[in-house]
Amino acid sequence: MELKNDLLLRAARGEKTERTPVWVMRQAGRILKEYLEIRSKLSGFIELVQTPELAAEVTIQPVDILGVDAAIIFSDILVIPEAMGLPYTMEEGKGPLFSNTVKNEADLGKLKIADEDSLGYVIEAINVTKKELNGRVPLIGFAGAPWTIFCYMVEGKGSKTFSHARKMLYTNPVFSHKLLDKITDSTINYLKGQVAAGANIVQVFDSWAGILPAGQYDDFSLKYISKIANAITDVPVIVFAKGAYASRKSIGSINCDVVGLDWNMDIKESRSLIGPDKTLQGNMDPATLYADFGTVKSETRKMIDQFGKAKHIANLGHGVYPDMEADKVKCFIDEVKEYSSRL
Amino acid sequence: MELKNDLLLRAARGEKTERTPVWVMRQAGRILKEYLEIRSKLSGFIELVQTPELAAEVTIQPVDILGVDAAIIFSDILVIPEAMGLPYTMEEGKGPLFSNTVKNEADLGKLKIADEDSLGYVIEAINVTKKELNGRVPLIGFAGAPWTIFCYMVEGKGSKTFSHARKMLYTNPVFSHKLLDKITDSTINYLKGQVAAGANIVQVFDSWAGILPAGQYDDFSLKYISKIANAITDVPVIVFAKGAYASRKSIGSINCDVVGLDWNMDIKESRSLIGPDKTLQGNMDPATLYADFGTVKSETRKMIDQFGKAKHIANLGHGVYPDMEADKVKCFIDEVKEYSSRL
Repeated sequence: MELKNDLLLRAARGEKTERTPVWVMRQAGRILKEYLEIRSKLSGFIELVQTPELAAEVTIQPVDILGVDAAIIFSDILVIPEAMGLPYTMEEGKGPLFSNTVKNEADLGKLKIADEDSLGYVIEAINVTKKELNGRVPLIGFAGAPWTIFCYMVEGKGSKTFSHARKMLYTNPVFSHKLLDKITDSTINYLKGQVAAGANIVQVFDSWAGILPAGQYDDFSLKYISKIANAITDVPVIVFAKGAYASRKSIGSINCDVVGLDWNMDIKESRSLIGPDKTLQGNMDPATLYADFGTVKSETRKMIDQFGKAKHIANLGHGVYPDMEADKVKCFIDEVKEYSSRL
Repeated sequence: MELKNDLLLRAARGEKTERTPVWVMRQAGRILKEYLEIRSKLSGFIELVQTPELAAEVTIQPVDILGVDAAIIFSDILVIPEAMGLPYTMEEGKGPLFSNTVKNEADLGKLKIADEDSLGYVIEAINVTKKELNGRVPLIGFAGAPWTIFCYMVEGKGSKTFSHARKMLYTNPVFSHKLLDKITDSTINYLKGQVAAGANIVQVFDSWAGILPAGQYDDFSLKYISKIANAITDVPVIVFAKGAYASRKSIGSINCDVVGLDWNMDIKESRSLIGPDKTLQGNMDPATLYADFGTVKSETRKMIDQFGKAKHIANLGHGVYPDMEADKVKCFIDEVKEYSSRL
């Protein structure tokens, strides 16, 4: 089906667009009362992720309510460890918790390579979403970067330092690479399945990029993201490596189309490190949306001016915080559209 | 009293030293079984901080056991909010929790400016420590940076995003500056008290530097650190702003003597941004200490080679993790001493 609004895809491929496309990380979620209504009827976050009709419904909400230029499938990066054989629970206000972690070869041996079947509920959610979106905007698929998934599989829960995961890199680099390989193969299967079901573009989230020294980042994370980017040939690939200040140059050299910037990455410096070819995504400070409407607008314009009109997908530099007002998020989106149309 | 080992102070002032001085952030703490013995007899962390004889004892342990070139007074950055009128509890494995936070002018009005008296137990711990150290090595005093203290006073607990604290900067910058001023005045009193009691050098820890965009960092954090650096005239001042990648140049321009680097800051790039005058401190990846002894040694030598022999205080790029082996920490310390002596 032909898309009625393909601004995001054209910008991702570096083509000229009438205006800057915009979406917002975590746009489907607690900032919308319509989301909370659905969520309140369920046992928890994971039930929502695993119920295709409802996942599709919350995926589409921000298209209707906020007017974003893309939907992103409502899911979680931790479906991959789950599909590989490590189930988790999500405790309210506490984050994910795995009952088992990967400590040794025996644990590694028990892990499956995830395939489309083991993630059928996500594929089904994409099918439903595509049907209901009816070509209005592109659908973004996504996965966690192998390093970020490794962090959770080894640590077993969120952490400020992920010292257990980092310890594994130093004490057993060979084992670490084996686990990363298995996660990467799973992720490639998963993203290919998403694309086959209709995802028009995919984003790889490396949430814990920022805790690795640059040399280790290239070796234990970027190498695997690069494998994924090489394997996904039918749609553009966005890489968002939060906190990877020192690795922006090497991220610019892999085979992806778009590089996401976090809110602390200087735009001009990032462009110079990443080079002129790739499209950049981001990167307004999400906390700006706590300010008054006037400030939200002026900061949005400042961001657009710094990126310039070409090769830019507007977004925040991190997910929107759950306590933010939907009206402020909409103000950001509207201002991107209006201001960039006038440039 | 004249110091028998003043390497750290001479390096901090930019003078030549026979070898590179070394200490380790969180050197007094759970990595030492001697610390755990004392800790096990007490109700908790805060009791240890508030008992001068015991605080002094654990302060000196790493000098005896690890052979560091400086002691750092065992205390907590959150003694400042406590002294200002916001008490906190420390929950095992969960971090600090404040029963009250600072939300408005009324809350702000109730806060005291901390003075030496309200922090008498730290001053007394310094007195005892100095006596028992008997001039063996310098004693480092410390405080949190006003922005980091602000984070806890507004948020009330640890957080991945400190979104409430960051919201305050956007919704009420005038109020935020007033609170930061009050924290800064308290911190200056406190550090002056530490120096009067015998601290030979002080370090300002800005643990949450990395969550602010560069412009906001300069305005809401560095400005106040700079005030502190200007006020402390008798001893050298170390500034450690974790994650402040984009602000290294501006940190280089304030009136401090030493700039601490975290493990993700490239050494040569940091030197070039900070300029040739200041001494640098850091910055080996703490997770390196999980590796075997050979790797610890080779990584230590690599770090020394990159910093060069002059204007460097060796340290990790973050506090040592609690589950690390004391022998590995000692290996790092010994290798710094031995290798830098041969240069």
